[in-house]
Amino acid sequence: MLETVSLKLNADELIKMALKEDISNEDVSTNAVLKDYKKGKADLICKQDGVICGLNVFERVFKILDENTEIKFLVKEGEKAAKSQRIAEITGDMRVILQGERTALNYLQRMSGIATYTSEVANLLKGSKTKLLDTRKTTPNMRIFEKYAVKVGGGNNHRYNLSDGVLLKDNHIGAAGGITNAIKAAKEYSSFVRKIEVEVETLDGVKEAVAAGADIIMLDNMSVADMTAAVKYINGRALTECSGNVTKENIKNIISTGVDYVSSGALTHSAPILDLSLKNLHPVEEV
Amino acid sequence: MLETVSLKLNADELIKMALKEDISNEDVSTNAVLKDYKKGKADLICKQDGVICGLNVFERVFKILDENTEIKFLVKEGEKAAKSQRIAEITGDMRVILQGERTALNYLQRMSGIATYTSEVANLLKGSKTKLLDTRKTTPNMRIFEKYAVKVGGGNNHRYNLSDGVLLKDNHIGAAGGITNAIKAAKEYSSFVRKIEVEVETLDGVKEAVAAGADIIMLDNMSVADMTAAVKYINGRALTECSGNVTKENIKNIISTGVDYVSSGALTHSAPILDLSLKNLHPVEEV
Amino acid sequence: MLETVSLKLNADELIKMALKEDISNEDVSTNAVLKDYKKGKADLICKQDGVICGLNVFERVFKILDENTEIKFLVKEGEKAAKSQRIAEITGDMRVILQGERTALNYLQRMSGIATYTSEVANLLKGSKTKLLDTRKTTPNMRIFEKYAVKVGGGNNHRYNLSDGVLLKDNHIGAAGGITNAIKAAKEYSSFVRKIEVEVETLDGVKEAVAAGADIIMLDNMSVADMTAAVKYINGRALTECSGNVTKENIKNIISTGVDYVSSGALTHSAPILDLSLKNLHPVEEV
Amino acid sequence: MLETVSLKLNADELIKMALKEDISNEDVSTNAVLKDYKKGKADLICKQDGVICGLNVFERVFKILDENTEIKFLVKEGEKAAKSQRIAEITGDMRVILQGERTALNYLQRMSGIATYTSEVANLLKGSKTKLLDTRKTTPNMRIFEKYAVKVGGGNNHRYNLSDGVLLKDNHIGAAGGITNAIKAAKEYSSFVRKIEVEVETLDGVKEAVAAGADIIMLDNMSVADMTAAVKYINGRALTECSGNVTKENIKNIISTGVDYVSSGALTHSAPILDLSLKNLHPVEEV
Amino acid sequence: MLETVSLKLNADELIKMALKEDISNEDVSTNAVLKDYKKGKADLICKQDGVICGLNVFERVFKILDENTEIKFLVKEGEKAAKSQRIAEITGDMRVILQGERTALNYLQRMSGIATYTSEVANLLKGSKTKLLDTRKTTPNMRIFEKYAVKVGGGNNHRYNLSDGVLLKDNHIGAAGGITNAIKAAKEYSSFVRKIEVEVETLDGVKEAVAAGADIIMLDNMSVADMTAAVKYINGRALTECSGNVTKENIKNIISTGVDYVSSGALTHSAPILDLSLKNLHPVEEV
Amino acid sequence: MLETVSLKLNADELIKMALKEDISNEDVSTNAVLKDYKKGKADLICKQDGVICGLNVFERVFKILDENTEIKFLVKEGEKAAKSQRIAEITGDMRVILQGERTALNYLQRMSGIATYTSEVANLLKGSKTKLLDTRKTTPNMRIFEKYAVKVGGGNNHRYNLSDGVLLKDNHIGAAGGITNAIKAAKEYSSFVRKIEVEVETLDGVKEAVAAGADIIMLDNMSVADMTAAVKYINGRALTECSGNVTKENIKNIISTGVDYVSSGALTHSAPILDLSLKNLHPVEEV
Repeated sequence: MLETVSLKLNADELIKMALKEDISNEDVSTNAVLKDYKKGKADLICKQDGVICGLNVFERVFKILDENTEIKFLVKEGEKAAKSQRIAEITGDMRVILQGERTALNYLQRMSGIATYTSEVANLLKGSKTKLLDTRKTTPNMRIFEKYAVKVGGGNNHRYNLSDGVLLKDNHIGAAGGITNAIKAAKEYSSFVRKIEVEVETLDGVKEAVAAGADIIMLDNMSVADMTAAVKYINGRALTECSGNVTKENIKNIISTGVDYVSSGALTHSAPILDLSLKNLHPVEEV
Repeated sequence: MLETVSLKLNADELIKMALKEDISNEDVSTNAVLKDYKKGKADLICKQDGVICGLNVFERVFKILDENTEIKFLVKEGEKAAKSQRIAEITGDMRVILQGERTALNYLQRMSGIATYTSEVANLLKGSKTKLLDTRKTTPNMRIFEKYAVKVGGGNNHRYNLSDGVLLKDNHIGAAGGITNAIKAAKEYSSFVRKIEVEVETLDGVKEAVAAGADIIMLDNMSVADMTAAVKYINGRALTECSGNVTKENIKNIISTGVDYVSSGALTHSAPILDLSLKNLHPVEEV
Repeated sequence: MLETVSLKLNADELIKMALKEDISNEDVSTNAVLKDYKKGKADLICKQDGVICGLNVFERVFKILDENTEIKFLVKEGEKAAKSQRIAEITGDMRVILQGERTALNYLQRMSGIATYTSEVANLLKGSKTKLLDTRKTTPNMRIFEKYAVKVGGGNNHRYNLSDGVLLKDNHIGAAGGITNAIKAAKEYSSFVRKIEVEVETLDGVKEAVAAGADIIMLDNMSVADMTAAVKYINGRALTECSGNVTKENIKNIISTGVDYVSSGALTHSAPILDLSLKNLHPVEEV
Repeated sequence: MLETVSLKLNADELIKMALKEDISNEDVSTNAVLKDYKKGKADLICKQDGVICGLNVFERVFKILDENTEIKFLVKEGEKAAKSQRIAEITGDMRVILQGERTALNYLQRMSGIATYTSEVANLLKGSKTKLLDTRKTTPNMRIFEKYAVKVGGGNNHRYNLSDGVLLKDNHIGAAGGITNAIKAAKEYSSFVRKIEVEVETLDGVKEAVAAGADIIMLDNMSVADMTAAVKYINGRALTECSGNVTKENIKNIISTGVDYVSSGALTHSAPILDLSLKNLHPVEEV
Repeated sequence: MLETVSLKLNADELIKMALKEDISNEDVSTNAVLKDYKKGKADLICKQDGVICGLNVFERVFKILDENTEIKFLVKEGEKAAKSQRIAEITGDMRVILQGERTALNYLQRMSGIATYTSEVANLLKGSKTKLLDTRKTTPNMRIFEKYAVKVGGGNNHRYNLSDGVLLKDNHIGAAGGITNAIKAAKEYSSFVRKIEVEVETLDGVKEAVAAGADIIMLDNMSVADMTAAVKYINGRALTECSGNVTKENIKNIISTGVDYVSSGALTHSAPILDLSLKNLHPVEEV
Repeated sequence: MLETVSLKLNADELIKMALKEDISNEDVSTNAVLKDYKKGKADLICKQDGVICGLNVFERVFKILDENTEIKFLVKEGEKAAKSQRIAEITGDMRVILQGERTALNYLQRMSGIATYTSEVANLLKGSKTKLLDTRKTTPNMRIFEKYAVKVGGGNNHRYNLSDGVLLKDNHIGAAGGITNAIKAAKEYSSFVRKIEVEVETLDGVKEAVAAGADIIMLDNMSVADMTAAVKYINGRALTECSGNVTKENIKNIISTGVDYVSSGALTHSAPILDLSLKNLHPVEEV
């Protein structure tokens, strides 16, 4: 589950905004046919095989509308669910179930889609030392949900944002006047709790980065041969990350270089959703 | 371009939040190497063929950080761009260009991805009377951008949210006690400016909906044969919408039914991004 | 009652702001004399005959300050109350009752005032086919409360805002180059769930609007004779709305034209409040 | 004019919210017919005699949407305008003029309505020493605008809210155990910059309040004879305020008591709007 | 305790922002080692002698994160605590205790520091008629907490902010054209509930202020002899305040002048914190 | 200067809130005497020797109120200023200068106070290898300003908040079941861009931390002898930080241990302000 303090402190505001996006003043259709409270129950059904992610975000949508809504989960966060499998039961005010349905599904489908896709890519890395990383190529105002979904899918998180990690790209290096200067400036400027990562494109760059004391070296768009040579040269003096157009096809070659990490923007920017649906809403007796 | 008042009134707050998501206190890397203002210029490059969408959102990201940033667009909103084509030039404080880059691209890539995918589906409908619709299956807090991208790609918008359109689904019909009652309740409850749309799954439902005065009839998961019969029966007395798992493969069959609209959630929930990149940032002389 | 999800999602923020407007740091008077929690009870009294509207908004004000406040309603929402009638009992922390009193009454008085006035006008329409409409001439940041009060008073809501209804006025028609063009542009641009309303001032305008397929025709500042002719000409091909200076005096004449709707800005912009008061606050024993 | 820092710091947020209330995503009608910037001009016309109030709030609505909108005022704030008089000219993007129109008028009409009504009541007090006061019976989230309008109309402001003035009502007095105790508690608790006002209903109460050192004594629902006696007894040792159902009819009698202030909730809660209208929008040439 | 409505209405938002300042997305350390809910208990310990202030703000921090957190206070608000004394016990989710700890302490330490320092200065005034005042020299976004701490420490509050008190300083006097004019302008402009305070630097200024009817006269940077003469001259016709560099050393001399109030900015801007610490966090059994 | 994007994105909202804290509706005193725009000029004067910090925050306060305010700085950020030295000239609307004065000074005084105090402590470390660190013991909602002031004063920043650095304290270690387990859990859980810091209190703890691969070891409340032994044992395999009651008196001993960093909460929680004042406001001619 998305950890509770983050959910309350950081996610709640976003979820509330998403609800307002969908209900700018009222749900006309529901209010036309359901004038009063009526207790109901519905099933959350999986319509495709995939990894379920975002269950307490899904729940939070309904709880924000009405804290008396009850959700019973039938799978655990991060578990695989099969087509037609029941994922959860929602019980509460039928109007609330109808009004939260779309927003709750929009979160859950996207998060599960990312977890499912990440899990497929992470599986290709199994058995190797190479780990899968996400990037900052997330949907605006969805990062907290999407980075979490990557972890649930078996990936690892790169830095969260520009404030909590140093990554010196070609433009920073250019501005600083070279790799050595850029690393020196970053060490002086940033808090001593941060590692310094630097992006290089050549073996000479690798050598300069090692000499300047980089903690992580990102090998950007380098050939498999060059990456292999780079990893060998670095020899544990820095962590290594392979970045660039990683595909399911070429990932085996990348693993062969011995690189520590491989990062993929597609995990968050191009994973299709996992199809989920609310079904069988029906009135139930009050107890 | 996304229309200016919406951009200012509705999009700005979201864009600012997205920027804060990426810069919770500062951009450590940039601030380490660029202590002072330095004017620079960069190119926005297309890395795949596709439809460009979101240019003034892209621009707004930088303007919010620094209103002196200047963007010169080299393609028009909604135009097709080819791989390697230059899309725009950004000129301004190099720190601002680096700090807005990711957020600006995250918006532009997603919006262009949706426009590109929508355009492909819309092309399949060309020559027919059937029009393509989006749904409310949008990414949370992205609806204003994603619905706009559908239009740029050649699609049409269904209702914006639960407040501005009546769509009576099976659950509403159940709660109201049948199609006729649901339509009656909706006509009484909702503003007279709203059309009443009702979802039906059978030909009998179609007949009841027509008799009850539905303005739009959504044919949900019906066979091509049934839809053809339904459209014929309705005969212009209501608009018709085909919903359900529309694919590029089965869309030709759907057209053949003579339905007015076909709606697809995939336009907004599963379109992959269009790959775009900021390149060649370099200092320029002050004039 | 104002429907619960809207209350929570859309009204709560406004109510909280209104409370902060009245308590920018603390209630000096109350805090001077009541240092500690003391349970008390007060009566909500009607000081004029009228229609009560806004009971759960009134309640929400106190619940936001202290969720343990209890309100027992003695009349139902939308009922008529007589001078001196008790409307509700409020029980809770005496400080909370004193601190929420003014804001709670400011909402309830205005909403009840609008419901009362609307009810008077709506009564004049009884027996005719003509229905009463509100407008967008609401108090800023009060629309959700005021449009609801119109409904409680027996009126109907026109569009909620500029986003959820198309109304082509003279300026839009001028910009589009005529009624026909304006209607055509609106049909192309707006979602197919929206009806197209157009404002016309002459019989020729009426004819053009009908021909162009307008869904609703607003007859603006036309004479009773012209309106009668217009309604006859339209003959059900579009809904009709009479707008302009509607008064209690001339409303009978308007009805005689057979128009479907008559709209009145005064419902929300000039209804006097209904006088209500909190009385008899006294300490009660804890149970 | 509403003073500039308050406008920026306190009013702007409310105005922006009011605009969002009216434009939750876009103005469909305007965007359908005006796809691009087109410079236009319109006249603000007075449709009733009255006191104009809120000109820079009216202006601010348009400036928030587009800072390039220009308003030329033809009357001064607080001046009387006659039916049909031109009040201002608005020049700018025609779309912005159409989109801000209703919100701008909603503010201006209400503020001018209050100023007009206040001015009528204040005129009845002319020649006497008695001054007119407003109350906290303002529309939620409109206090800053409404209290200002009272001043423009020739009235005076009572305390702004619960935080900035002490007013001990019967409930406070009851809780403190009498007038003397309540005044003592308030003097001890509140900042020494605050005057202490106490509400009394009898001559005995008046005497106790004077003895306890009240700065202001509110004579609540007392007869003219009693008020006259009270004012005579107080003899300048405290300021006096007459509260309760003040009407245009009985106000002359109230003046005769020699009371310093008379307060009226109707100024803000029941003043009808002043009818104003935007007319003659037409395109103009760019210069 | 900080009074409950202010805490909810005005303090909660600030506390939540402070929590987000410290947890921009998650607490990495805690989430790494505590994946699930585990009930724990910790002690709040005083590490210096001092006056405890802010207990319910401290509590609120944890309650905002998780309303099930329980705090048992072992000292009362405003009491003196000694080094090593236990102040409170916190019981709840161990993750929540760890995540709220720093923010809760940052509030409590500062508020207790101000209360402790104020108490020391207030003690020097004991036995005299002179009372201690704070100023507006508070930490931005901390005023509600800091002004309250001054009261808990035995001081009195001057005006809360620029909106709720009139204080005419040299610049206002200059702008108005003299003391008499400034007082006249303030009486006309401001609500009659406000006292008028004026700052003077000479005996002539004192005389003019008395003549013009000032309610409070601030003696700014005047010598002890001049202040003595001023207080004698004023003779109760206005309250007197001594402002300027008040120190523990010179405060006895100030008292000797017979001034009513002495104000000190140092109470809020330079009081060191009171050292407090959370200790002995340990798991406890669920009951 | 505080870097411009942070100022705009993160500081502006806080500054605006601070202004509203001081002006909840209007500045009564200023508005009473200055009804219209009048251009004026004032001097910012230093009243104590110290390090100036926060100049563009000071400026931003006025710019938020009125972007036409002009500030000319006479010292540079971080420079030492002497008593009586002019720091800046402010030119603009006299009302704006008066209304922003207190808030602008409240920021500048506190930031300069922190920079001055930090600079004194940092000077004691000169000539050694040990660097000075701040902590998270900052004033709520002031962290961005206070951490920046530490840097300007010559100190270094520890982690910004709980989200961007791992620091395993005794409670985390206890929860994880020992130092080794805690470090392992943190390495697995947190992003690979983060260093792992662990707090130890004994030499055995130091040894376990080194063996487990800690990046930074915090020596908490250890004797000088133990710290010396610890630093020697670690021998560069991890960075070292000395935490605990660091004073100006004992800091030389701490340096002698060879520790890399020494952290001090007092930098931000107990530095007295630097006294600064706005003087000599006078009208100037418009040019």
